[in-house]
Amino acid sequence: MADHYAQPRENDGPTETPAIRWHEPPEGPVVVLLDQTRLPAEEVELVCTDAPALVEAIRTLAVRGAPLLGIAGAYGVALAAVRGFDVDEAALALAGARPTAVNLAVGVRRAQAAHRAALAAGGDEAAAAAAALHAARTLHRQDAEASSRMAGHGLALLDELLPGGSHRVLTHCNTGALVSGGEGTAFAVALAAHRAGKLRRLWVDETRPLLQGARLTAYEAARSGMAYTLLTDNAAGSLFASGEVDAVLIGADRIAADGSVANKVGSYPLAVLARYHHVPFVVVAPVTTIDLDTPDGASIEVEQRAGHEVTEIAAPQVPVAGAEPGGGIPVAPLGTQAYNPAFDVTPPELITAIVTEEGVVSPVTAEALAELCDLSRQVTI
Amino acid sequence: MADHYAQPRENDGPTETPAIRWHEPPEGPVVVLLDQTRLPAEEVELVCTDAPALVEAIRTLAVRGAPLLGIAGAYGVALAAVRGFDVDEAALALAGARPTAVNLAVGVRRAQAAHRAALAAGGDEAAAAAAALHAARTLHRQDAEASSRMAGHGLALLDELLPGGSHRVLTHCNTGALVSGGEGTAFAVALAAHRAGKLRRLWVDETRPLLQGARLTAYEAARSGMAYTLLTDNAAGSLFASGEVDAVLIGADRIAADGSVANKVGSYPLAVLARYHHVPFVVVAPVTTIDLDTPDGASIEVEQRAGHEVTEIAAPQVPVAGAEPGGGIPVAPLGTQAYNPAFDVTPPELITAIVTEEGVVSPVTAEALAELCDLSRQVTI
Repeated sequence: MADHYAQPRENDGPTETPAIRWHEPPEGPVVVLLDQTRLPAEEVELVCTDAPALVEAIRTLAVRGAPLLGIAGAYGVALAAVRGFDVDEAALALAGARPTAVNLAVGVRRAQAAHRAALAAGGDEAAAAAAALHAARTLHRQDAEASSRMAGHGLALLDELLPGGSHRVLTHCNTGALVSGGEGTAFAVALAAHRAGKLRRLWVDETRPLLQGARLTAYEAARSGMAYTLLTDNAAGSLFASGEVDAVLIGADRIAADGSVANKVGSYPLAVLARYHHVPFVVVAPVTTIDLDTPDGASIEVEQRAGHEVTEIAAPQVPVAGAEPGGGIPVAPLGTQAYNPAFDVTPPELITAIVTEEGVVSPVTAEALAELCDLSRQVTI
Repeated sequence: MADHYAQPRENDGPTETPAIRWHEPPEGPVVVLLDQTRLPAEEVELVCTDAPALVEAIRTLAVRGAPLLGIAGAYGVALAAVRGFDVDEAALALAGARPTAVNLAVGVRRAQAAHRAALAAGGDEAAAAAAALHAARTLHRQDAEASSRMAGHGLALLDELLPGGSHRVLTHCNTGALVSGGEGTAFAVALAAHRAGKLRRLWVDETRPLLQGARLTAYEAARSGMAYTLLTDNAAGSLFASGEVDAVLIGADRIAADGSVANKVGSYPLAVLARYHHVPFVVVAPVTTIDLDTPDGASIEVEQRAGHEVTEIAAPQVPVAGAEPGGGIPVAPLGTQAYNPAFDVTPPELITAIVTEEGVVSPVTAEALAELCDLSRQVTI
């Protein structure tokens, strides 16, 4: 059993509950997560004292969102190193905890490489652990900076695509401060539009089965003072048909070399609706989400999750007598089989633009993406 | 407060729980409904002793589904007549209980017209009440026959559209025996395919917000022994993209004169996906669903329902401490506003065919629909 425990969050104010933080109490260093499965009902922090605890938190979605998974993966490697566990073993388990978001593996590799490099340079275990932690903290800081730059590029793109200056934006899943070291990806763009007085409304898809839109995006939108409205995923069609969506903004879990985007299931139907209604469909993601080793959409491994996420409604704050196997409230007959892919893949021809911290790719082509990645590598070096 | 009460259903066998029945116990006649809000957890009958009770049952969706609403409306008028209440007042309340399904108003008018005609012909109140009840029973029987004929026409159409003879059919909401005097509309076609050994799989959209697919269609599919799989509404896109949907079959709540179809919210996005993927999109509904007085889709009044259906998950079998205002389990922050149309409208150009008991309309044009209605009127007279 992984070693973790829950604690009420330390800061009780309305403004600050970081999605992830490195903490060094006298008992030894830990990674502290805001348990996203319990939002919006409760703000509880989950304290992970070793990498297996973090792996479990990733699998159960206590921590989630592509960029944040990268940061979590890096801190997980650092935690194993600092606490004297086998770093390569921890890295393997962390990188494999969820298959689709490429950022997780990237973050793990970055901390692991720093650890190895320090050892190779003649450093001792303590120096190598410090190097891994430094890499994780750097990634965390870079991600926050990337958020802010994506927001700027994204807002400029919206202004260009929608010259009216009064945007009604539809978004899916959760892409705000809860997925990032900063203010997020797609949500950060909407937030920038809100701050500039240009966001007329944020349409929030509830995002079944796990309701990240209802539970997390609505929570973040409410805290930001945005005008927002929640809808079932299948009600988006009516909004498009009545001309009430000016743009779609989503995040990404992996972008293949050809520009195919894997994102939360339900993104692809929005892309098809957006195309049918001539509405811009914009993906916002850091460059680390682009995986040039995955040639196309068909090569992206899509995580299939347990059927009980569909046949039951998770309601952690409501104890259900005799509940099993998922512990939620059953909404389908016992024995019902469910199809439950966590993601779907949108082909590049349906994507108006991909916004990254290094700039905007539009139209989305393999050449333009490769060029952006080259540029990004030069900047990083 | 309307006068109704719940009772465990009389028949405990697996085969027979009619969605609606007229019953005449010693205490006086009643309309008995299978309470669909409590399925699949419990099979409880709701006994309505007057029209207001039935109006409440219609509003809360204890009874639902376009054809069944017509039958319920007719029985409601008969109940008012038999029990000596004001028939026109009852008819007005029943017809207005839900605005979108035209069948409800049609059923109400039919019983009301029979009642008036009997009085006009010199009959007394008892004779007029008997005429209203006869009209309701006739509608009930005709609807059962219509189901069976729709199933036949629909299966023939599937065989023509999909010559392979091994159909994977996607459906939305619930359109089986729970919405009909017979075996339903779209579901009846899938059932006919299943009995003919041609249904490879029924893909069941869960149908948020009220989960009629998960709760009711999965329940009916399981009882029929079909191969079926449940999915979140937004996962349908992945199924289309991977070529796993051969046809979409849905019901209808109102068909305008131009062939626009109002049906459960989420139908329109499926129509757009079906078009994008060159998959047939077929609507199955009795002729009573066609409303030549509604010229087009824009003229269809779409019922907007309470936001708490989206911000909370209804779970009648789980008592929630201090729950309000909808009594369900909250899944969004308090105060979240929701967009919750009960239906959406699919334009005729996205519909491959409309299957009725009088035959198939394809392509869907105003002329073809008018012709079908003329034919149907001749048959009825």
